[in-house]
Amino acid sequence: TFSQVALAPCSFSGCHLQEVVYKLNALLVCCCFVFCRRPPKLRQISWLLFVFFSSDIEISRAQSPKAVDVLAKEIGLLTDEIEIYGQTKAKVRLSLLERLKDQPDGKYVLVAGITPTPLGEGKSTVTIGLVQALTAHLKINSFACLRQPSQGPTFGVKGGAAGGGYAQVIPMEEFNLHLTGDIHAITAANNLLAAAIDARILHENTQSDKALYNRLVPVVKGVRGFSSIQLARLRRLGINKTDPETLTEEEISRFVRLDIDPSTITWQRVVDTNDRFLRKITIGQANTEKGFVRQAQFDIAVASEIMAILALTTSLEDMKERLGKIVVANDKKGEPVTAEDLGVTGALAVLMKDAIKPTLMQTLEGTPVFVHAGPFANIAHGNSSILADKIALKLVGEKGFVVTEAGFGADIGMEKFFNIKCRASGLVPSVVVLVATVRALKMHGGGPSVSAGAPLKKEYTEENLQLVADGCCNLQKQIQITQLFGVPVVVALNVFNNSTDQISRYFFLISFDAVPCNHWSDGGRGAVKLAQAVEKAANQKSSFKYLYSLETIAQKVYGAEDIELSPAAQSQIDRYTRQGFGKLPICMAKTHLSLSHQPEKKGVPTGFILPISDVRASIGAGFIYPLVGTDRAYCPGQPVPCPPPYGEDPFPKPNLTLP
Amino acid sequence: TFSQVALAPCSFSGCHLQEVVYKLNALLVCCCFVFCRRPPKLRQISWLLFVFFSSDIEISRAQSPKAVDVLAKEIGLLTDEIEIYGQTKAKVRLSLLERLKDQPDGKYVLVAGITPTPLGEGKSTVTIGLVQALTAHLKINSFACLRQPSQGPTFGVKGGAAGGGYAQVIPMEEFNLHLTGDIHAITAANNLLAAAIDARILHENTQSDKALYNRLVPVVKGVRGFSSIQLARLRRLGINKTDPETLTEEEISRFVRLDIDPSTITWQRVVDTNDRFLRKITIGQANTEKGFVRQAQFDIAVASEIMAILALTTSLEDMKERLGKIVVANDKKGEPVTAEDLGVTGALAVLMKDAIKPTLMQTLEGTPVFVHAGPFANIAHGNSSILADKIALKLVGEKGFVVTEAGFGADIGMEKFFNIKCRASGLVPSVVVLVATVRALKMHGGGPSVSAGAPLKKEYTEENLQLVADGCCNLQKQIQITQLFGVPVVVALNVFNNSTDQISRYFFLISFDAVPCNHWSDGGRGAVKLAQAVEKAANQKSSFKYLYSLETIAQKVYGAEDIELSPAAQSQIDRYTRQGFGKLPICMAKTHLSLSHQPEKKGVPTGFILPISDVRASIGAGFIYPLVGTDRAYCPGQPVPCPPPYGEDPFPKPNLTLP
Repeated sequence: TFSQVALAPCSFSGCHLQEVVYKLNALLVCCCFVFCRRPPKLRQISWLLFVFFSSDIEISRAQSPKAVDVLAKEIGLLTDEIEIYGQTKAKVRLSLLERLKDQPDGKYVLVAGITPTPLGEGKSTVTIGLVQALTAHLKINSFACLRQPSQGPTFGVKGGAAGGGYAQVIPMEEFNLHLTGDIHAITAANNLLAAAIDARILHENTQSDKALYNRLVPVVKGVRGFSSIQLARLRRLGINKTDPETLTEEEISRFVRLDIDPSTITWQRVVDTNDRFLRKITIGQANTEKGFVRQAQFDIAVASEIMAILALTTSLEDMKERLGKIVVANDKKGEPVTAEDLGVTGALAVLMKDAIKPTLMQTLEGTPVFVHAGPFANIAHGNSSILADKIALKLVGEKGFVVTEAGFGADIGMEKFFNIKCRASGLVPSVVVLVATVRALKMHGGGPSVSAGAPLKKEYTEENLQLVADGCCNLQKQIQITQLFGVPVVVALNVFNNSTDQISRYFFLISFDAVPCNHWSDGGRGAVKLAQAVEKAANQKSSFKYLYSLETIAQKVYGAEDIELSPAAQSQIDRYTRQGFGKLPICMAKTHLSLSHQPEKKGVPTGFILPISDVRASIGAGFIYPLVGTDRAYCPGQPVPCPPPYGEDPFPKPNLTLP
Repeated sequence: TFSQVALAPCSFSGCHLQEVVYKLNALLVCCCFVFCRRPPKLRQISWLLFVFFSSDIEISRAQSPKAVDVLAKEIGLLTDEIEIYGQTKAKVRLSLLERLKDQPDGKYVLVAGITPTPLGEGKSTVTIGLVQALTAHLKINSFACLRQPSQGPTFGVKGGAAGGGYAQVIPMEEFNLHLTGDIHAITAANNLLAAAIDARILHENTQSDKALYNRLVPVVKGVRGFSSIQLARLRRLGINKTDPETLTEEEISRFVRLDIDPSTITWQRVVDTNDRFLRKITIGQANTEKGFVRQAQFDIAVASEIMAILALTTSLEDMKERLGKIVVANDKKGEPVTAEDLGVTGALAVLMKDAIKPTLMQTLEGTPVFVHAGPFANIAHGNSSILADKIALKLVGEKGFVVTEAGFGADIGMEKFFNIKCRASGLVPSVVVLVATVRALKMHGGGPSVSAGAPLKKEYTEENLQLVADGCCNLQKQIQITQLFGVPVVVALNVFNNSTDQISRYFFLISFDAVPCNHWSDGGRGAVKLAQAVEKAANQKSSFKYLYSLETIAQKVYGAEDIELSPAAQSQIDRYTRQGFGKLPICMAKTHLSLSHQPEKKGVPTGFILPISDVRASIGAGFIYPLVGTDRAYCPGQPVPCPPPYGEDPFPKPNLTLP
């Protein structure tokens, strides 16, 4: 559906030639579109003059992106299929899936990684470099599908997630801040549900059945009427009545009282800021709340189950249904209480009506990118949205490539990509790209600890071939994990800003067929070899299959000898089975810093028993998540092994500022 | 700069004729724009077929708005002056103010009201009806400038704020939810600052000077460097050095330690949800926060000082400066600690870089509307943004009208419009429209209490001429207040869905020159008489002047005999005077339900002493706000007389849902 031209005008900001070419191009797009409805070719944008810039933000600000409506036309979108947000972002409507439903899918590539250092090993830059290489240099249609980053880490030590160097999504600020408002919509929906829970408990505790009924089913212009949500609740309660005036007192009581047990509430408020002081709080202390105080917490917004739902949903109708199914607590009889019971499904869905549409952006070289959803990989599945992947697979055409990324190492992100995301979407992956760095290999080979914000120790800044060689065990294990799922693997050695000279000497030691990538310094050109390897691997036979049980994941993926369920975990499993949720897929909540549950164990730990301390459920998203580990050293003070709000605080200096 | 045609195609959804006209119109816009750069005429959109619909949302969903780029061209905006957000919203760039700086301003009309019932008396619908009448029926350029509503009330009993009936901003969902993300940006910026305060206190309490210095001024690639914000802080501390390696130990200590006194923190976290359980909370209870717990609260997002700043700012540079000046607490010596001291000004500004641009939408009849900023009138000034008004005044041209609205009754919203907003903008108002309803007049005449969510008592649903006549005292007093400021007044009697027949009998009793308005049922046509009255009043001489002191406002506006400062209020005034903030304008924080401080006192209370219990400051926004009242009956349990998060809880049924 779209093709490429490598020849491109100088797109250095302020260049007059570029301006002329842009205008001509826009005219061409118009004519082409009006007369033959065939979109013009995709245009690469070059960056030859950027060598003067040193930081990611300088590079991003120096490039002039194509107008997003031009990009949209280049890749074959119709005018009424996009909703433009400013000059560089557009939401894509889901109606596209209907129009292109008979178009065969392109090749589906997952970028995963070895067990990372806390600094990350550049899966995002590999993803972006790879599509730049495919599209602009090999002339193969391709699309990158990325997660929307949380603003918490963006203003912390980590910084943004737009990629880096000459493999970036631009403009960086637009990517990292607000985007098209999806995370804000999730926050609004999540917190509306949270407020409804506490308000409901308070009202039930302080009001009569009759007063509750009058508030829930008010007389409007002399008439009472049930909403469709309320009619559904009545049916669930076995009350087959539609006229509010005919309910008996007993039926009214059952209808109005959810009888939520406050000690079982699992739905937390969220904020998209690293705010450590909200990790554990007491709420309801104003006099107006009449003493109904309880302990609660704020999670980071992207850890909301609504984010996981957004990532896994396949249509507006499906999303609304999943939102309704969210279990927020149990009632006093031990039965689940849902968002639907609280009557807020319609409100949650209307808040999310635009968030369901993926956002179109572009790389530094003008390659199309979808940014959509960003659930955390430690309590959810860590993958961008199914909808973005599906749309992109249609747009690139049968011979094209869609490259997406899984959070954390392959043992977590990739495992969840296969077992949860592919299971929900039905899509079959063609190739896995496993990203390794010399830095992470050295760490697995016994190098000293690496931490964010602190300078790297000399083992990492100086050559040390032995550490690299010893660390290859982790890479080998991750390759084996990939092979368990029956998908061809390509190993990408991400070179960052190290000189190639130095790297080639390391590379000699690595016995796998790994491709060094220089996209960080050279853009798409630096990832051409990787792109060629991926193209070749995509022609191999894939015999993709899911893995099923908790035990299989623990033993075959992590390398544990066995699992050990705590009494709490066992009782939760029994409860979920009794409630009918026993067959949901499993989403492990485990540290990403080791194959085991202990983050300090590098390389390939063996002989350990994997402890499951508790089990939680995201019923709307559709998975059960066992909490792995006993000490939670990597996430102190939290019931869920994700520091909510995530990570360090916005100190000392926010990474992104207005100049 | 723009003109109107009354003749319009049928714009009923699905009409083929309309589609053809749209396409022709788009072509016309293109040609016109390319060849003569003169925008085509503004097109009214009709709604004749909507009489089948009964609710506001049905009416809104039935109308097909013009594409916002077409609207933008109709009103004379250039392509590079707008940033489109979907089909119906666009942000307008501030560069327009530079291009049109020599264009004379249009007439500036403020819509204010009498002391309202808790249901509101329809100032928004009058504002919208008036511009519909001016533009589509009298063929005079006009623009409405409205506030962005908070999502809290939207999902509570109150519902949205898009107007109603046939005087609405459309599409209603787009107006009421998310809009273009401004309130979400404010929430993000507000909470980043809040997190930075607590994190800073924790770090200062647990780390050495050297460790703090290393975090604030880290060694990057072997070099330390101060940011521009840090250099400014050094200058404020009297340390005239630029090389981080040359500071003495004593200087480092002064530089790294803000020494915030936690008991003086006035900066609260915010959420755009009615979440009563966050009104008073305890934060920092996780072990990781090492016992530094404190009591705090969440306010509703629109109560953030950053919202007040957005509404009062005049440029990006000015906004950044105001954000830096925000005082969040005092240090242990009693000196103010600012956002700039915390080093987050650049981060706050980058989060707000798009929020500063007003959002263009349209009424049900296709009249242009700016939606921008929505500070609450109880703790801030309750008016939409200066920037939107300024841009609109240029766009309508010298003979055009810009109509904006002030929150609450004229004693609060209008007083603040004049004394705070006009003072900051330098703009001079031409006319005030005072909105009254029969319902509110009856309440002031001694009718029973009116409350949201409960059915109206019979005094309000049946004719009662005596109550109306008795209640006119409040209207008379509000007219006198308007005259204090020297601006011509027109009284609009908002008829809602009452029959005109009934109204005319009331109307006979009112001795003022009041114009009945039927825009709710008849759209612009129903407000033509009001529009004519406003046009006439705009030709009268305005002798606008500010009022100054706290005493003047209390006596001349509210009708108090005197004010009484509590010891706390007096000591705050002394402190602010010492800190150099003594000359800032005053923004009264008072109930809107009475001219006095006691909400139950209707009509025109006299003979009361206005108690000032405390005094606060929004230094970034640029005003001091005295807290009026002693019992806070209207806002129980809150230190500030605004229930943060505002109002009732999202119960029983959210007003806006996905069908």
